[in-house]
Amino acid sequence: MIYKNILSSLLSFLFISTFFIQPVQANKTDIVIGMADGLTVPFALAAGLSGAVQSNAIVITAGIAEIVAGSIAMGLGGYLAGKTEQEHFQSELNREYEEVENIPEKEKEEVKLIFSQYGINERTQNIIVDELSNDKHKWVDFMMKYELGLEEPDVNRAMNSAATIGISYIVGGLIPLSAYFFTRTPFQGLLISALLTVICLFLFGYFKSKVTGQPPLKGAMKVTLIGVTAAAAAFLVAKAFNSVL
Amino acid sequence: MIYKNILSSLLSFLFISTFFIQPVQANKTDIVIGMADGLTVPFALAAGLSGAVQSNAIVITAGIAEIVAGSIAMGLGGYLAGKTEQEHFQSELNREYEEVENIPEKEKEEVKLIFSQYGINERTQNIIVDELSNDKHKWVDFMMKYELGLEEPDVNRAMNSAATIGISYIVGGLIPLSAYFFTRTPFQGLLISALLTVICLFLFGYFKSKVTGQPPLKGAMKVTLIGVTAAAAAFLVAKAFNSVL
Repeated sequence: MIYKNILSSLLSFLFISTFFIQPVQANKTDIVIGMADGLTVPFALAAGLSGAVQSNAIVITAGIAEIVAGSIAMGLGGYLAGKTEQEHFQSELNREYEEVENIPEKEKEEVKLIFSQYGINERTQNIIVDELSNDKHKWVDFMMKYELGLEEPDVNRAMNSAATIGISYIVGGLIPLSAYFFTRTPFQGLLISALLTVICLFLFGYFKSKVTGQPPLKGAMKVTLIGVTAAAAAFLVAKAFNSVL
Repeated sequence: MIYKNILSSLLSFLFISTFFIQPVQANKTDIVIGMADGLTVPFALAAGLSGAVQSNAIVITAGIAEIVAGSIAMGLGGYLAGKTEQEHFQSELNREYEEVENIPEKEKEEVKLIFSQYGINERTQNIIVDELSNDKHKWVDFMMKYELGLEEPDVNRAMNSAATIGISYIVGGLIPLSAYFFTRTPFQGLLISALLTVICLFLFGYFKSKVTGQPPLKGAMKVTLIGVTAAAAAFLVAKAFNSVL
């Protein structure tokens, strides 16, 4: 079948892509997050269409379109969000430098306010402010982190992260779709896709929780629950819609 | 046409939903973010399928399935992420209380370390530690915020936010799809959908940037760029795929 050829070229492409992103340091966390997310919506979309159309080709075409759209929205979105975050940090940094330069007394009051919240008395507040204001750079660093809660974003990391999540989303999304390449009807495809995806959702949910520091078993069940609920709802709604269209 | 009836019932449903979520305080930011995101992938998916299938009904069914799947993944995902975040905060809080109780000297060193980074001398560090450790609750609050960078998550807000983003995603997603209800062929649908969606992407991108404090015109162009790129890529890939399937 021609499907098999397409699938194997796709997998080769992805295999090569993995080498391509390796030198720019793909983060394990991003791979797991991208794959776990990639499984969810393409699986649910394919499941939804399986209840409504008669041809695997349509399910596959829609699934591929979703994977392309989703990975670009995620990858490009992440890249642009990273740039926005850096611009925001830079403009706040400039503003703090200006304020420390032009209205130091107001900035000193802001430092004292932070410490008064924790029961530090006025005398000590004044000592802290005096020492902190000796070094303008450290003072601004302090204000950025403790007044504004901002840390300098690592833009290269953010872009890498976006690219890795995007590519992992593609790999994750091809797992539920692969079932439709090897079966004859959407119904058969759905059965195998559901079996395959539930196992993968559980495994990726497990590792996703492990790398993000959550209880892994509970996390695995959460990720599986989201995927299954989304797929069941998409199936029912698409079936209902299709019967009236 | 029956499409029009379906669309008007859907819009009535959403209109009523809006009242339903109003009492639980829907945040304007969440509405704008959900709608801006909702426009992107459903638009791109519908565009992708328009290049590959001959029937508006298939485009609509796939679009509806994606909107259902995407909004549930987003809403339920946001809800569960909110709960996870709260559990994480609570377990870190308990750990800090235990540490302050059982290894206060080590915790005092950690406080001093924070201040030494900003050029505060040892004498002052000791004064701060002495005052801070007078009140255990304030000490723990300080460690949570300044050592761990954690703030108590507002779970109700997180859940509300997830629900609002999910529902707004549905409303946003129906905008590009609506064009396929009123046209005869996917190609006509695509033209009107693209026109309608580009205008909406720009508008929602503008308001999204405004409510998140970014330069609105630049933000509007970014959101539009993501949507158009995703749609163009989905269109080309789905067309290429469909020609070999």
